[in-house]
Amino acid sequence: MTPSSTAAIKALIFDVFGTLVDWRTSIAREAERLLAPQGIRLDWLDFADQWRAQYQPAMEEVRAGRMPFCKLDLLHRRNLDVVLRAHALEDVDAPTRAELTLAWHRLDAWPDVAQGLVALRTKFLLAPCSNGNISLMVDLARRNGLLWDAILGAEVARDYKPKPAVYRHAAEAFDLSPHEVMMVAAHSDDLQAAADCGLATAFVARPDEHGLGMGETEPACRVDLRVDHLLELAQRLGCGTGASVASER
Amino acid sequence: MTPSSTAAIKALIFDVFGTLVDWRTSIAREAERLLAPQGIRLDWLDFADQWRAQYQPAMEEVRAGRMPFCKLDLLHRRNLDVVLRAHALEDVDAPTRAELTLAWHRLDAWPDVAQGLVALRTKFLLAPCSNGNISLMVDLARRNGLLWDAILGAEVARDYKPKPAVYRHAAEAFDLSPHEVMMVAAHSDDLQAAADCGLATAFVARPDEHGLGMGETEPACRVDLRVDHLLELAQRLGCGTGASVASER
Repeated sequence: MTPSSTAAIKALIFDVFGTLVDWRTSIAREAERLLAPQGIRLDWLDFADQWRAQYQPAMEEVRAGRMPFCKLDLLHRRNLDVVLRAHALEDVDAPTRAELTLAWHRLDAWPDVAQGLVALRTKFLLAPCSNGNISLMVDLARRNGLLWDAILGAEVARDYKPKPAVYRHAAEAFDLSPHEVMMVAAHSDDLQAAADCGLATAFVARPDEHGLGMGETEPACRVDLRVDHLLELAQRLGCGTGASVASER
Repeated sequence: MTPSSTAAIKALIFDVFGTLVDWRTSIAREAERLLAPQGIRLDWLDFADQWRAQYQPAMEEVRAGRMPFCKLDLLHRRNLDVVLRAHALEDVDAPTRAELTLAWHRLDAWPDVAQGLVALRTKFLLAPCSNGNISLMVDLARRNGLLWDAILGAEVARDYKPKPAVYRHAAEAFDLSPHEVMMVAAHSDDLQAAADCGLATAFVARPDEHGLGMGETEPACRVDLRVDHLLELAQRLGCGTGASVASER
């Protein structure tokens, strides 16, 4: 992408799970913290992978219109029940299941994210465009020191990515045309769907999302930018360092 | 309200026009800036009052179900047309009308607001719960250095205050019960509607909202707290000074 073609960008919207936060090791940590004291022994990373594996099928029920929209928290809870059943762990009580579901609110950001967003915020409006619900995004932001202009995404659009309505709604919420908004994600399918709606796209490599060397390192679709981390994205988009972002005006 | 009764509060949601920002002098300034160069002479504060006077009737069309929900920007634009017609100013062209409509995105906050929110943010989740649309809230936040956890309110709930759905939706977005959320406003009708939904309420006096000494100074309904400014609200709710808010964690 030439400099002139990113000149129209006024807002960046972000995928969150995998792109901004390391869900896998965070969920493994939280599962061990909550289940190990009950005498449960599991491969915690494998447990995280199994829980995450239920994510797309659960959302597909909503996307396909077979169930009404609900917050991702509710899908995470149902998916947890599936995984616990598969491990013959039906004895885990409801309070533990509720607390473990909120593990998704306690994910840690990749190391470049907080500083990268500060730099990007000097030039662009920023919002998550995630399938996570508003309260989940709020909790991740507070935990990791992320500053957003708004929380956009599935709950506000009332459908799940990669349905076009979610990307379009994000642009409309900012009163912007799709080409004035750049979707930032570590997943090619997310970026392809955003591009199909007319958004600009930036691929961020998260090679360790699914374990060391097990994430996407190169986009499988055409994108406008491909970067290794958010500070590189800020540099490529001509942002300052963000050192003076405390002065909002 | 006793200290124990505010102990449950986890989030504060705010009315914006009049409560956080001085719409009247800001609109008067913007109208003069855009219309005076076209040779138009008006009492600019009176013009602001007349524009604002169309606000509730326009929203009532949506609240009553006579028109589908639309962003407040669109209602502001239609209301502007009404006011210009009343002044026989049909010659004002469409680009000027569009730019003047965006004057509502360029309102100045009352002097206590930015610092007050910083202090309140040390202890509570914060969101606007305004009839203004998301982009309008985003622009006011950037202009005035306000940090929000999320943008809630009419556009997200797809109805206008004081309809109960707007307050209830804000609490639900934070995964909180109504009694865990406090509505902060300078208007008794807004606070009464929030209280009817089970929210806690704080009245902030804005005696100059409609001109010097022409705003509400005392609530006309029962409220949980009554303060003169947001720093007093922060103190009453046991917040720190916010001096170290830069460390988000």
